[in-house]
Amino acid sequence: MSLTVIGTVALDTVETPFGKITEGLGGSATHFSAAATFFASVSLVAVIGEDFPETHIDFFRSRSVNLEGLSRLPGPSFRWKGRYEEDLNTAHTLETQLNVLLQFDPRLPASVKNNKFVFLGNIDPSLQAKVIDQAGGDPFIAMDTMNFWIKDYREALLKTLKRVHMLVINEGEARLLAGESNLLKASRAIREMGPKLLVVKRGEYGALAFFKDQIFNAPGLPLEDIQDPTGAGDSFAGGLMGHLAKTGDLSFSNLKKAVIYGSVMASFNVEEFSLDRLKRLKASEIESRYRQFCELAHFENGTVEA
Amino acid sequence: MSLTVIGTVALDTVETPFGKITEGLGGSATHFSAAATFFASVSLVAVIGEDFPETHIDFFRSRSVNLEGLSRLPGPSFRWKGRYEEDLNTAHTLETQLNVLLQFDPRLPASVKNNKFVFLGNIDPSLQAKVIDQAGGDPFIAMDTMNFWIKDYREALLKTLKRVHMLVINEGEARLLAGESNLLKASRAIREMGPKLLVVKRGEYGALAFFKDQIFNAPGLPLEDIQDPTGAGDSFAGGLMGHLAKTGDLSFSNLKKAVIYGSVMASFNVEEFSLDRLKRLKASEIESRYRQFCELAHFENGTVEA
Repeated sequence: MSLTVIGTVALDTVETPFGKITEGLGGSATHFSAAATFFASVSLVAVIGEDFPETHIDFFRSRSVNLEGLSRLPGPSFRWKGRYEEDLNTAHTLETQLNVLLQFDPRLPASVKNNKFVFLGNIDPSLQAKVIDQAGGDPFIAMDTMNFWIKDYREALLKTLKRVHMLVINEGEARLLAGESNLLKASRAIREMGPKLLVVKRGEYGALAFFKDQIFNAPGLPLEDIQDPTGAGDSFAGGLMGHLAKTGDLSFSNLKKAVIYGSVMASFNVEEFSLDRLKRLKASEIESRYRQFCELAHFENGTVEA
Repeated sequence: MSLTVIGTVALDTVETPFGKITEGLGGSATHFSAAATFFASVSLVAVIGEDFPETHIDFFRSRSVNLEGLSRLPGPSFRWKGRYEEDLNTAHTLETQLNVLLQFDPRLPASVKNNKFVFLGNIDPSLQAKVIDQAGGDPFIAMDTMNFWIKDYREALLKTLKRVHMLVINEGEARLLAGESNLLKASRAIREMGPKLLVVKRGEYGALAFFKDQIFNAPGLPLEDIQDPTGAGDSFAGGLMGHLAKTGDLSFSNLKKAVIYGSVMASFNVEEFSLDRLKRLKASEIESRYRQFCELAHFENGTVEA
């Protein structure tokens, strides 16, 4: 089934201890699409400026992304500049130029309106709500958000949250949103805000998924070489939503698989700069790494005591 | 098979946001034994002072721990005083009174010398070596250590490390010992120092086990109520070594199960102060929580692509 993503398409300048890339193809919707297109057909709803390089757009075309919802506005494109320290855990934002993002008013073209799966990337919650307003046919809706919206746009965020089926956020954000440091209690508080499903990203420690009284722990695969963590969370969401859209199966046991496919895509995403690794990735490599996750996580049943 | 543990037996005064206990039964060998005795018969090698309460010793007796290696010396017992902040992640040591621990010279009595499994709790690596010297019959030897020994007693530590089969330490200590922040590289460096098996404890994030090119990720069970994390790592080691001693099976697939039993015991240990939870724990609760770990970690195989 088709999958809509709304989010940023950016020119990223990133420096890590392992190298630097200048104005590479980036943004939440970009990393999401690069991962999700391995599983499902993706419709992109985003904005770029008049200076956005055609070669970057060619990447989306090469993945057969529906670009009818990609609007090009006068003015320069959204740019982000960041730097990672030795441990690669924290991104220091050096510069954010919102540019055309300030005028972004998402419109779903007719070819996109009835997609059965929608992912609302990390943007202003009132823009996320506008997408929900336009989406027809009762789709499955998931969203991401961040500290900035949780702290300063809480009211708008809570309104949007009420209307989605799944929230995908990182651990610190989950605690902040719930105002509760115990993750189990926080997960309950968040699911009372609207989304029945909650996926908590924990970086190198993997992810947790919560649904009713069930919990699933996806392991983090220890990696030898991590060059650039930018977009890890977005490619995670892309693999996760991609698998759900591909299968159309919303059972918790299939969500577990989806979380693993998300983890697989994130683990590839960080191995090289920008989209370099995802660009040359093969479907067989995805399945092979999925099996690595099986080996990593699985163990035998315990003893049945007499 | 029988299991020897050397480590501390202490009087712990602990304050957490959820309460306080004064001079409770504590110490690494104590939490280890409280967990391990659910699986195997345990011999304790440790030291206490003349003021050590008889009721605390009764606990070991109630678990049929072999106490021939427990020596009582003149002077006061080892005492530790600590406080945990709201997030329960970091213990602030308020006071350490080594007392009789300073004169500790571990001796293995005849009834202990030939135990097939030995755990060297976190103490001076030269004392750990003394235990290895005395252990007969080629036992399986595992050890713990900490930052203090890694930084200031490195030479002695490296000598002891060469002589053990398994090292069980926390994540920060593994990085410090290897001088390498990438955990996969650190795990390789450590296993070149001697131990063929490495288990890395990651607190609420679970644990990783490394053997040759195999890696196992044990999840951390999200808990609703954590009252006192003191001894979590020791009860983890107790469950782990206890299961190995019970089964006598050193295959990696059985080590995985052992790591889960360790995780199970640690998850109970932290639910109440001191040994309160482990004291009234039943074998059926252990198996039931083991099944919870299965549900938490397991997912279905991926798609086999054509």
